[in-house]
Amino acid sequence: MGQLSRIGVAIDEELLAKFDALIATKGYTNRSEAFRDLIRDELVEKSWEKPDSAVVATVTLVYDHHVRMLSDKLTEIQHGAYHNVLSTLHVHLDHDNCLEVLVLKGKAAMVRQMADALISTKGVKHGRLTITTTGAGL
Amino acid sequence: MGQLSRIGVAIDEELLAKFDALIATKGYTNRSEAFRDLIRDELVEKSWEKPDSAVVATVTLVYDHHVRMLSDKLTEIQHGAYHNVLSTLHVHLDHDNCLEVLVLKGKAAMVRQMADALISTKGVKHGRLTITTTGAGL
Amino acid sequence: MGQLSRIGVAIDEELLAKFDALIATKGYTNRSEAFRDLIRDELVEKSWEKPDSAVVATVTLVYDHHVRMLSDKLTEIQHGAYHNVLSTLHVHLDHDNCLEVLVLKGKAAMVRQMADALISTKGVKHGRLTITTTGAGL
Amino acid sequence: MGQLSRIGVAIDEELLAKFDALIATKGYTNRSEAFRDLIRDELVEKSWEKPDSAVVATVTLVYDHHVRMLSDKLTEIQHGAYHNVLSTLHVHLDHDNCLEVLVLKGKAAMVRQMADALISTKGVKHGRLTITTTGAGL
Repeated sequence: MGQLSRIGVAIDEELLAKFDALIATKGYTNRSEAFRDLIRDELVEKSWEKPDSAVVATVTLVYDHHVRMLSDKLTEIQHGAYHNVLSTLHVHLDHDNCLEVLVLKGKAAMVRQMADALISTKGVKHGRLTITTTGAGL
Repeated sequence: MGQLSRIGVAIDEELLAKFDALIATKGYTNRSEAFRDLIRDELVEKSWEKPDSAVVATVTLVYDHHVRMLSDKLTEIQHGAYHNVLSTLHVHLDHDNCLEVLVLKGKAAMVRQMADALISTKGVKHGRLTITTTGAGL
Repeated sequence: MGQLSRIGVAIDEELLAKFDALIATKGYTNRSEAFRDLIRDELVEKSWEKPDSAVVATVTLVYDHHVRMLSDKLTEIQHGAYHNVLSTLHVHLDHDNCLEVLVLKGKAAMVRQMADALISTKGVKHGRLTITTTGAGL
Repeated sequence: MGQLSRIGVAIDEELLAKFDALIATKGYTNRSEAFRDLIRDELVEKSWEKPDSAVVATVTLVYDHHVRMLSDKLTEIQHGAYHNVLSTLHVHLDHDNCLEVLVLKGKAAMVRQMADALISTKGVKHGRLTITTTGAGL
């Protein structure tokens, strides 16, 4: 983490009380750690604004595997840019439904495009792109 | 999917044009599929409001594995409710950073609590809870 | 692990020297741990002889995703007994080839049958069943 | 697969009958596919004899996560050569036991060495190296 700085933050009492209550619910034992997490989350969001920045993401898909050719279509979209798909985890939820999580790495624009293509494929019931980070420099 | 109904939707021209442009970017070839995805996404969000409803989620964590005891702490949190952790995928991003995706299933309140505990653990640089669905009834 | 017993084992010098050399190569720093691993491995093998015993296994498959309908066929075989497939990890090896590892749990006979069905599917270039254990009682 | 050759194979009746019975059990509907699988399996085995050949493997580990520092030790071994660990799947088997499958890619000697180090770590109840292939040229 490097050298630690201690800074002062002016904050009105009421807002602070709400914040403290919130982070207690979330399990933080330490207010500074909660602040650091907020900052890092903002930085991750920001990094996605530039189409060329290097990002990491997960795509979560829920679909009915009985839809004809759907597995093949989803596999096809991934293989078109297989270098960007670090790996995929598949879980059978019930007789019909699967959940698939893909870990993607690449330029923001490219990752978004692949996520959109997967999520908009007919037969995918629910899909979400979750943006995160390589962790470097955070 | 069951029987298909055809419904009419009143929508002003300008909003429709923007919507059509948006879904074209996202790769939809069919406006109805895009509408169905919007509705399903709303239903998924809604299902998370009741603490007792059965939900599925992924938790994405990025952390530095060199932080002492961190792997052990994260493993410990998961094992406390191991029935709810369907499985975990681990990817080594670089010499320091790992990405971990957990697939959770259980009651909404319980899943949120585990996600909060994992994300707020010191040493986790970035964490996100992504809510989704078992797919049943959608 | 429970209470530790110390037992004596008679073994001729030459065989012991070979065994010590082997386990040094494998990274064991402790001869007893190496013996315990040998015994546990034998017990795992034995557990697979009874068709009804509860076992855990992984199935490793390498295949060309361009083979028409192959993803769909493999998904279909798994969904027939989805309760026994704990989860599946998919890695894209290159433009053509994927590796898939399935984690299976169930009765030995059933697990073997699913592994055979997956491995013998046309288009699967290489497949192996790896037997292991639930860990309980070892 | 390229151009198909048809070759003749001399084989005595009794051996052939046994082979046919075996492959029927395994689900093959086609004797040639069963022969091709045998040949590919031999080639995969052979590729592992040269320490420098590029190979793919999975390592399956079952361990008790309560063993102090074990998660940390296993993570440490992997990060020492993180480029060779494509990804890892973790499944919670019960309150005590986890199964972990690692997908490794690299030179045969290096992959064997990492597998040995993981499997011989104290606290790992059962471990197996499963050798496979990148699929290229098969």
